[in-house]
Amino acid sequence: MNQDYIKADEWSIIEEGFDLKRVKSSESLFSIGNGAMGQRANFEETYSGDTFQGSYIAGVYYPDKTRVGWWKNGYPEYFAKVLNAPNWIGIKVLINGVELDLATCKKVSAFKRELNMKEGCYRRSFDAVLSNNAMVHVDVTRFLSLDLDEVGAIAFKVTVENMDAEVSFFPFLDSGITNEDSNWDDKFWNTTKVSSSRNRAFIEAHTMKTNFRTCTFMQANLDYNGESISGSLEEQHDNFVSLKFSKKAKKGEQLSLTKFGGYTVSRNHPENELVHAANEVLDKASNFGFTKLMEKQKESWAKIWDMSDIVIQGDIKAQQGIRFNIFQLNQTYLGTDSRLNIGPKGFTGEKYGGSTYWDTEAYCIPFYMATKDEMVARKLLKYRYNHLEKAIENAKKLGFVNGAALYPMVTMNGEECHNEWEITFEEIHRNGAIAFAIYNYYRYTGDYSYIPEMGLEVLIGIARFWHQRANFSGYRNKFVILGVTGPNEYENNVNNNWYTNYLAQWCIHFTLEQLSKVKEGYQKDYNRIIGKTNLTPSECESWKKVADNIYFPFSEEHGVYLQQDGFLDKDLVKVADLDKTERPINQKWSWDRILRSPYIKQADVLQGFYFFEENFTLKELENHFDFYEPFTVHESSLSPCVHSIQAAKLGRMEQAYTFYLRTSRLDLDDYNKEVEEGLHITSMAGTWMSIVEGFGGMRVINDMLSFEPRIPKQWASYSFKVNFRNRILKVKVSQDEIHIELKGDEELVILINGKEYKLALNTTTII
Amino acid sequence: MNQDYIKADEWSIIEEGFDLKRVKSSESLFSIGNGAMGQRANFEETYSGDTFQGSYIAGVYYPDKTRVGWWKNGYPEYFAKVLNAPNWIGIKVLINGVELDLATCKKVSAFKRELNMKEGCYRRSFDAVLSNNAMVHVDVTRFLSLDLDEVGAIAFKVTVENMDAEVSFFPFLDSGITNEDSNWDDKFWNTTKVSSSRNRAFIEAHTMKTNFRTCTFMQANLDYNGESISGSLEEQHDNFVSLKFSKKAKKGEQLSLTKFGGYTVSRNHPENELVHAANEVLDKASNFGFTKLMEKQKESWAKIWDMSDIVIQGDIKAQQGIRFNIFQLNQTYLGTDSRLNIGPKGFTGEKYGGSTYWDTEAYCIPFYMATKDEMVARKLLKYRYNHLEKAIENAKKLGFVNGAALYPMVTMNGEECHNEWEITFEEIHRNGAIAFAIYNYYRYTGDYSYIPEMGLEVLIGIARFWHQRANFSGYRNKFVILGVTGPNEYENNVNNNWYTNYLAQWCIHFTLEQLSKVKEGYQKDYNRIIGKTNLTPSECESWKKVADNIYFPFSEEHGVYLQQDGFLDKDLVKVADLDKTERPINQKWSWDRILRSPYIKQADVLQGFYFFEENFTLKELENHFDFYEPFTVHESSLSPCVHSIQAAKLGRMEQAYTFYLRTSRLDLDDYNKEVEEGLHITSMAGTWMSIVEGFGGMRVINDMLSFEPRIPKQWASYSFKVNFRNRILKVKVSQDEIHIELKGDEELVILINGKEYKLALNTTTII
Repeated sequence: MNQDYIKADEWSIIEEGFDLKRVKSSESLFSIGNGAMGQRANFEETYSGDTFQGSYIAGVYYPDKTRVGWWKNGYPEYFAKVLNAPNWIGIKVLINGVELDLATCKKVSAFKRELNMKEGCYRRSFDAVLSNNAMVHVDVTRFLSLDLDEVGAIAFKVTVENMDAEVSFFPFLDSGITNEDSNWDDKFWNTTKVSSSRNRAFIEAHTMKTNFRTCTFMQANLDYNGESISGSLEEQHDNFVSLKFSKKAKKGEQLSLTKFGGYTVSRNHPENELVHAANEVLDKASNFGFTKLMEKQKESWAKIWDMSDIVIQGDIKAQQGIRFNIFQLNQTYLGTDSRLNIGPKGFTGEKYGGSTYWDTEAYCIPFYMATKDEMVARKLLKYRYNHLEKAIENAKKLGFVNGAALYPMVTMNGEECHNEWEITFEEIHRNGAIAFAIYNYYRYTGDYSYIPEMGLEVLIGIARFWHQRANFSGYRNKFVILGVTGPNEYENNVNNNWYTNYLAQWCIHFTLEQLSKVKEGYQKDYNRIIGKTNLTPSECESWKKVADNIYFPFSEEHGVYLQQDGFLDKDLVKVADLDKTERPINQKWSWDRILRSPYIKQADVLQGFYFFEENFTLKELENHFDFYEPFTVHESSLSPCVHSIQAAKLGRMEQAYTFYLRTSRLDLDDYNKEVEEGLHITSMAGTWMSIVEGFGGMRVINDMLSFEPRIPKQWASYSFKVNFRNRILKVKVSQDEIHIELKGDEELVILINGKEYKLALNTTTII
Repeated sequence: MNQDYIKADEWSIIEEGFDLKRVKSSESLFSIGNGAMGQRANFEETYSGDTFQGSYIAGVYYPDKTRVGWWKNGYPEYFAKVLNAPNWIGIKVLINGVELDLATCKKVSAFKRELNMKEGCYRRSFDAVLSNNAMVHVDVTRFLSLDLDEVGAIAFKVTVENMDAEVSFFPFLDSGITNEDSNWDDKFWNTTKVSSSRNRAFIEAHTMKTNFRTCTFMQANLDYNGESISGSLEEQHDNFVSLKFSKKAKKGEQLSLTKFGGYTVSRNHPENELVHAANEVLDKASNFGFTKLMEKQKESWAKIWDMSDIVIQGDIKAQQGIRFNIFQLNQTYLGTDSRLNIGPKGFTGEKYGGSTYWDTEAYCIPFYMATKDEMVARKLLKYRYNHLEKAIENAKKLGFVNGAALYPMVTMNGEECHNEWEITFEEIHRNGAIAFAIYNYYRYTGDYSYIPEMGLEVLIGIARFWHQRANFSGYRNKFVILGVTGPNEYENNVNNNWYTNYLAQWCIHFTLEQLSKVKEGYQKDYNRIIGKTNLTPSECESWKKVADNIYFPFSEEHGVYLQQDGFLDKDLVKVADLDKTERPINQKWSWDRILRSPYIKQADVLQGFYFFEENFTLKELENHFDFYEPFTVHESSLSPCVHSIQAAKLGRMEQAYTFYLRTSRLDLDDYNKEVEEGLHITSMAGTWMSIVEGFGGMRVINDMLSFEPRIPKQWASYSFKVNFRNRILKVKVSQDEIHIELKGDEELVILINGKEYKLALNTTTII
């Protein structure tokens, strides 16, 4: 843990007291988003202290020219970057001509931030004494509307407590912004027009290269004792426009500036109608007004929470942690647009550039399947189907042929945009996660239709890749997969990573099965796919030969599959025996030392045991967990959740609980000392999994929903809801009982601790 | 082979005909150097075509900020770059006001370049028709003086053939130059003063960060029919100074501008006396005059050739190749300064930044030992001794302790300046080459004194490194070395690279032997070293335990040591069976494909067999050669020479000859399609080895010089000289006989084909 200034609270993230050193961290933690746009918790008013500015528009990116020390053949030419978008939140404030700036005030007190997760809004208030001795009280509320998802709203309230004072507000738009994470200091935005009309203003700008056209817009109104004060245009040039609202206010009386702002984008509107669309959405927002829009916001968040909330009784920090995770996931991705995906930092920072990693398939899909309509997960699958051609091109660049597909490590539009050979070229297990998600979707939702419609083509491309990527080792008389990086990125360019080999085998077998099923049940789709892919029976035979004869490194001595060839050659000192000053090794050790150590960044063999647990006995899981976990440093945000689930399954609840806390409060407590750069969004889905799959023991077994609930001794109870095939189940687990309530149109038979229960409709079953 | 425009000639490199596309290639091939400075064959006059400008001063470099895509702990902060230095060669020429520029002339004919290697000078001549129809004949001679090594001399002769014409020469200096190979477009030079005095001019400038202070200087004189035409200052500002010499010449009469120029540097003079030193050296050059200085140049080169020439009869291309290699080595390093070393591109380009690689120890030292006084090789060894503290710091950065030393992969001043984890951190065999060179030096020269004086400390640091770098594998009950890159850089992060493991073992055993020898024979040195290093008998015991128990991968099936663990898992298709369109693989294949292929860039296991051949039988060599060479693509300039030597040893003269041609004409014929960037200087020493050690079979066996001469059937004879322990032997091998002539003060017993011969003084022994 690196920080603990966030107050424990069930529904809110709260910071009290102003500390310049915490500003960037809080800018991440108090970020808001609505799936279509996102905003770091930057101040509206001028702030001359250290800050990391970030406004983001979903799907708007820039292909930054690749920067490497030594070029390797096959590297992509660019790295698609999440873009810092034009600033719409800015409001300069003058009190008797002196600028409000928390970095230069004489005194700041009663500073408080609150991210109200229940209502989906962010509030900030403080008292400050300016250099002219004006004592001001400021109260700001900001939210990004779920109902009008192009609009954000701000109510900025100022009261001068100790004098009558002229208060001036300058709400502005600014497209002269930069990305911190720029390779070559390229200019990412080109502004084409700045305009204003009464209390509204617009900046039309497009991204360079990708040419996403945007209109950043705002409307402002000032209210003083119920009177609306009119404003005027203050400044309009280049990439900046500012209005001005000024009023001499009596001592102790409040001035309230309301600002609506946001973006209309050519992804959603004809490109010559962006200002028109902006006016339309501003009209809608004005018609509601700030208060009514805020009420709608609460209602919309209430709906989300109704389905996705997890309630933990008796452990307020754990409660806050899980809600923070669920809240951020919903702020990032709502499943309304199959062109979008879930970036590892969501809308909270720039790092990791491109938006889509294998995190989506491995970690996020279960959350979205269980807490949303199944169409949401289907959209995430379709995203990859839409990128199949690009995945085939990507494989071609690396020398693969005949429609083999390698999905990118990192992408925006389907093209690879990562450039580290040991990851880009070698961390190929990502291809397996994409196939696994297809299986997982069908297993959970029971919706087979995706496979004949789209999934099978993806599977064929992936199977072709594995078939070509393996080679026959005459020495072993088996097929081997050389030169890979497994999920444990603390090993690079290893041979026969067990996880990768297992996935390769599984992908081919699964694809062959689906080919048979589609051939039987969906003749028309089958013919279309065979026609398109030119797949022949002999090619399938050839895949099967590889899959049936793949090599798995195994240690007879330890009774475990080996993470890769040569793992036992390492100096096998357990993490517990490492000096604490050596941790985290990714900050303390040189890269070569990490590589030759036995230390594991995140689940690798155990990731395979997580995906395919039905293929292994509990004893096997225990052996492997006991062998590998002691070497695992969990220095990836994706590590603790899988271990928490497995520890729970092994009945090791103390360990499971420790892992849970680490995953759920990773950012709140800043375990990895990097929260300033943004939040770890994708691993937040892992937190949800550690409760629902870990403690709740939720699985689908033989087409039946199953639970094996356990509960940490620190908790009185926990409850969650899942949507299983259009039935809503609410599960509540306390120390003594399990309550399960079913809502929907049909009864459901489920397994609890291996025993079948027929759940009656709208009734709570107590076990 | 990529080009063949160089005319075959025994003593010269000749280009005939002007081709814009060949300019950059010829700029490399016709480079000149004198050990202290170097100059690409850029034109003196204006040239608006594509060119790669390069003037270099030995030991003057710039630490360019590291550029990587993804930072890894342990990377150095900068990469020391060979610097393009201020231009001293420039002479703008106007004919009746029209600028001479070969890229824009109406016609260029009779263009010829000649690098006369015997005399150490570069000539260029051509006829050109300018836009004003002036027909000019130009004849330029340029050399860098061996006698005054701060001075270069140019005679630039112009004759207008078809009219009386005003010819103006503007000899200039220019410090407004850049490096092509700059990471961040930093400004590398800061000019502090530009001055002139009569026919001389000076630019004082220093490098940024490293603060090497330099004075670039020139003096010019114009001669017309024996009359000296005086000049005047034309332009003097910022970072530029130009003189002007103008004369109306009669049709067909020659104007000759002589320019002396060069650098005085704070490495060699007090920094406030650089202009003074420049004036002094210009006085000396003027006193000689161009013609006399040129005569001295011939004499000095004659001395170099007398000792280092290799004469091949009956094969003019082979003759030209070997002389080109010997010439370039001598242009690059003459052994006069132990602060200097041999950069892979010498003074012919910028690439590979830092100057010193393991190439020096592995490839260059044998050449310098045999063709120079032994002090030259000793200076190269001392260079590493001087860097020992930095090598210890370098190891410390990577987590090693207790005085373990890891010499840098690339360096200027002892600090590591490479930044690719798989090379910087993992290509650690370089440490072994540095120890091997100490052994090789003693073996050849018989001078043991270096070891007690300096070498033993280096060996202790290296032994400590290997001891710590190995770890015990409980699985194998042996010590293993994990995560390395061998000489074959087409494998990264492999385990138990046989060559590395063998070197590690050898280094420790050799160090322990030397400790005993120094303890016995050099008590005072021994005490000093033990005091300084705190070496204890138990530490030595612990080294020995590692060395005695190191693991070597071996294949019983093939009867060969394996390049690394898992080599036999590869798809073992031989190079001969690869489609030719796939070659060179480093241009045609993605990096991951190269890595998992069996293809070998340069000798790896065979490099070990080269260094330590006395430890292996001829049959073992044959087995390993037959196993590995068929997988070797020789895509490193350092590859063919070792294979040529081993093929010769195995009596495979056709193969040896093919490898020889490839190494000796690598740049002349541009096998690697990159000669524009500069020459492959260090591999040129390998060419010398392939004749002397390969065909000549020269070795030191039991402290005795030994030859086992063979001769390619294409040659009538070849001869070379070696300095062995201050005796000069001239060896001439023809198809029928071996002639050996001994010069010196003492008789010498040598082995020829395993038989002892006592050579009489100043007599030719015929065998």
